[in-house]
Amino acid sequence: MVGNEPVITLTTDFGYRDPFVGVMKGVILKINPRALIVDLTHGIVPQNIKEAAFSLGVSYKFFPDHTIHVVVVDPGVGSGRRPIMVSADSQYFIGPDNGVFSYVYKFSREEPRVVHITAGRYFLSSESPTFQGRDLFAPVAAWLSRGVGMSDFGDSVKDYQKFEVPSPDLTAGGDMTGEVIHIDRFGNAITNISGDDIRGLGGRPGPYTIRMTFRNREVPLKEVYSQAEDRGLYSLVNSSGYLELFVNGGNAAAEYNIATGDKVEIRVAPTCSGMTAKNNAGD
Amino acid sequence: MVGNEPVITLTTDFGYRDPFVGVMKGVILKINPRALIVDLTHGIVPQNIKEAAFSLGVSYKFFPDHTIHVVVVDPGVGSGRRPIMVSADSQYFIGPDNGVFSYVYKFSREEPRVVHITAGRYFLSSESPTFQGRDLFAPVAAWLSRGVGMSDFGDSVKDYQKFEVPSPDLTAGGDMTGEVIHIDRFGNAITNISGDDIRGLGGRPGPYTIRMTFRNREVPLKEVYSQAEDRGLYSLVNSSGYLELFVNGGNAAAEYNIATGDKVEIRVAPTCSGMTAKNNAGD
Amino acid sequence: MVGNEPVITLTTDFGYRDPFVGVMKGVILKINPRALIVDLTHGIVPQNIKEAAFSLGVSYKFFPDHTIHVVVVDPGVGSGRRPIMVSADSQYFIGPDNGVFSYVYKFSREEPRVVHITAGRYFLSSESPTFQGRDLFAPVAAWLSRGVGMSDFGDSVKDYQKFEVPSPDLTAGGDMTGEVIHIDRFGNAITNISGDDIRGLGGRPGPYTIRMTFRNREVPLKEVYSQAEDRGLYSLVNSSGYLELFVNGGNAAAEYNIATGDKVEIRVAPTCSGMTAKNNAGD
Repeated sequence: MVGNEPVITLTTDFGYRDPFVGVMKGVILKINPRALIVDLTHGIVPQNIKEAAFSLGVSYKFFPDHTIHVVVVDPGVGSGRRPIMVSADSQYFIGPDNGVFSYVYKFSREEPRVVHITAGRYFLSSESPTFQGRDLFAPVAAWLSRGVGMSDFGDSVKDYQKFEVPSPDLTAGGDMTGEVIHIDRFGNAITNISGDDIRGLGGRPGPYTIRMTFRNREVPLKEVYSQAEDRGLYSLVNSSGYLELFVNGGNAAAEYNIATGDKVEIRVAPTCSGMTAKNNAGD
Repeated sequence: MVGNEPVITLTTDFGYRDPFVGVMKGVILKINPRALIVDLTHGIVPQNIKEAAFSLGVSYKFFPDHTIHVVVVDPGVGSGRRPIMVSADSQYFIGPDNGVFSYVYKFSREEPRVVHITAGRYFLSSESPTFQGRDLFAPVAAWLSRGVGMSDFGDSVKDYQKFEVPSPDLTAGGDMTGEVIHIDRFGNAITNISGDDIRGLGGRPGPYTIRMTFRNREVPLKEVYSQAEDRGLYSLVNSSGYLELFVNGGNAAAEYNIATGDKVEIRVAPTCSGMTAKNNAGD
Repeated sequence: MVGNEPVITLTTDFGYRDPFVGVMKGVILKINPRALIVDLTHGIVPQNIKEAAFSLGVSYKFFPDHTIHVVVVDPGVGSGRRPIMVSADSQYFIGPDNGVFSYVYKFSREEPRVVHITAGRYFLSSESPTFQGRDLFAPVAAWLSRGVGMSDFGDSVKDYQKFEVPSPDLTAGGDMTGEVIHIDRFGNAITNISGDDIRGLGGRPGPYTIRMTFRNREVPLKEVYSQAEDRGLYSLVNSSGYLELFVNGGNAAAEYNIATGDKVEIRVAPTCSGMTAKNNAGD
C-alpha cells in the first residue's frame, strides 16, 4: 500500500531530445494526478543496463518509503524478457527483468519480492510492442501509486535475472584488484571498491598502511577533493561509498585517459607511512 | 474551464544550459501554485518548427483532458507573428502562430478553435520583446489553468498558419515514396509513412506483398527491434505509428549515414513472399 | 516563515548524466513531500561560480515570494568554506559561501541577511564530506520550507564572500567598455552592459547617438531579433536587460568566434545618425 503523496522516479536512456519521457509523465498523470514524478536521470548510455543499475543502486535509499522507481533501459523490449515489479527495502521497482535491479537485490535487507507483471488491464490500450515505458511501465507505476496491490499485477517469480554486482578481487596476500565502473559528469572515475571493502582489509593485527595504485603508480588517498595538493591524480571514498579517482578542479578521465574497465589496486602493508584505513574510509 | 490539477507541458528549443525554462516555471507558479508542470522536451533543434510540431503531434494525446501545452520554438519572436491559443481534442495549445500546431490541426477530431492572444492584462508587466515564453506564453498558460475563459484572451481567428504535415507520395502504380523526418536519440530514422498509410495500400484483392526499400535495397520489416537477425538495417512501425529504420542495439543514422529528407519507398506486389500488410501494421 | 506550497529551485553543475540531482530531490521530498521542486539549470560549466551567479541573478525575481533557491556549484566542497543561507528580496538562497550569490547581494532592495549554517541536526545522517548538495543543502532547504526559522540554522555573518558583479568601465570621455560574460544555447553573446548602463550614458544635453562596436566594427543595435536585415552580427538589449550580440536565425558565438571575455565598446557622440538611447533601451 502506498502513501498519500506517492513519489515515482524515472530512470531511462531516452536522453533529452525526444518527447519519450514527457509522454510517460502524461500517461502517469492521466491515471494519478497526485503522483510526484522525479527524474533520476535520462542520460544513461543507450541500452547500458549496468550503468542504469549502478545509478539506481546508489540513489534509491535517499527516497521516501513507498517510492516507486521505474527504470526503462531495455534492449530486449518486445522480446521474451519479462516486465517485473519488485518490493524491497520498503520501496518499489518496476522495469524489465534484465538485471537492472541487481544492486537492489544485493543491498536489500530482506529477500526481495518479485512479481512478473501480466495483468493487461493495467496497460495502456494503445499498447505498442516497442515502447513499453509508455504502454506498460508508466501505467503500472501509476496504478500501483493509486493503491492497487502488488499481487494484482501478476504472480511471484523466483528466477529473476541478476548480474554479479562487480566486486573487487582479493588476492591470497590480502591485496585487492578492482576496476573503474563509471565516469561521472566531472570526469571522476568511480571504482567497484567500496569503503567497506577497504575497511575489511583492516582486519589484521598491528598498524598497517593502505596504498592505492593505478597503472603502477601510487595514487594518494584523500578525504575531500580540496585536500589534493596539486592538479595530479588523487583518490577518495566518494559520497556513494565507492573509491574514485579525481583531479581537484579538473577532469581525471580526460586528463589521464581513464575508461571504465581500467584496473585499480589496493595493497596493504604493515608499515606506518601513508594514510590508515580509518582515515580512508570516509563515511 | 480547466480541472483542479491542471497539467501544463513545455516544449522549447531552449536546451538545458540556460535558466530560460526554469524562469518560465517560476512565472507559472507565481500565478498558479497548483499547476503541474511537465517538460515535454527542451532539446528541439534551435528554431526547428517542424521538429517541435512533430514532437508535440505524437505526444499530446497521452496527456489528460484539459492539459495545456505551451510550445516556444519561435524564430519570429518580436516580429508580426501572432501569439495564439488553440482548443482541440479537449486540450489546449499555446504558442506562436508559425505552424507549430500543424499536427494538432490535422489530427483533431473536430474543427480546432484558435484565438489570437491580445489581452495584455494577462502578460508579465516586465514584458520584453525577445522572450515571449516568459512574458506572454507562460503567464497566459497559468491564467488559463486558473480558469480564465479562452475568449477573454482575444478574438477567434480562422487564418492561422499551418504547414502540410508531410505525407508520403502515392504513385499511379500504388507504390509510395516517403522520407525521413526525424532522427531520435537512439539513431532510429523515423519516416512520414504511417502504419495507416501502409494499411491503406492493402485495399486490393488477393494476397499481396509489401516491400520497403531504402537506397535501392530492401529493408526487412519487423514488429519489434529484437526480431532483427543481425546488426543490419531493419524497419518497423514504431510506437508513434510511423515507419522507422533501425539497427537493433545500434545507431542506424550513424552507421548508415541517414539524415532527415532521405527517401524511403514502399512497393506493393501481388506475390506471396515477404511479410503481409497485416504483419507490418503494428498495433 | 514560508507559505503553504513552497517552491525550491535547484541550480547546479551536475549535468544530466548522473543521478545527483534526482537524489537531492529524494532527500527534499523525504523531509517535505509538499515541496514544489523546480530545476533552474544543471548545465552550469563545472565549478564555474560566475556563470551560476549570473544564471541565478537574472532569474530569481521571476519566482514567487518565499521561494528557496539552492545553488550547488562548489569547487571548495569539504574545505573550510562555509555553507550559508541568505534572505533577500523576500526570497531565500542556500549554498556555499563562494560568491555565488553576488548578484543577489547587489540587486537586493534591502541589506541581505546571511546565516552561517551550522545546525547539524538538520543535515543528513549519512553525511559525506564530498556531496553537501545531498547531505546539507537539500535537507536544510527542505526544513526551511517546512517552517524552521532562519536563526535556527546558525548565526548571522557579515563577512560573506562576494565578487564584484562585472560592470562596464566608463572612460573619461563618457564611452564604455564591457565584455562578454555568457554564451547562451543559441550562441547569443551576452555582455555585462545593461540597458540601464546605456540609458545612463544619455544624461547629457542635446541629441546624441550611441554606437556599439565589436572588434572595431560597428554592430547595429536592434530591439528584436527579427529586425536584423541579414545574417550579419547585430545587438540588442535582451530579455534579462543586458546587451547581447546575435545573428538572427544563426549562432553568433560560432559564426564570429566570440568567447567570454571578449571586449565590447559603446561610444556616445552628439550627432543625429544611428539609433537613440531611447530606442536602444528595450524594456
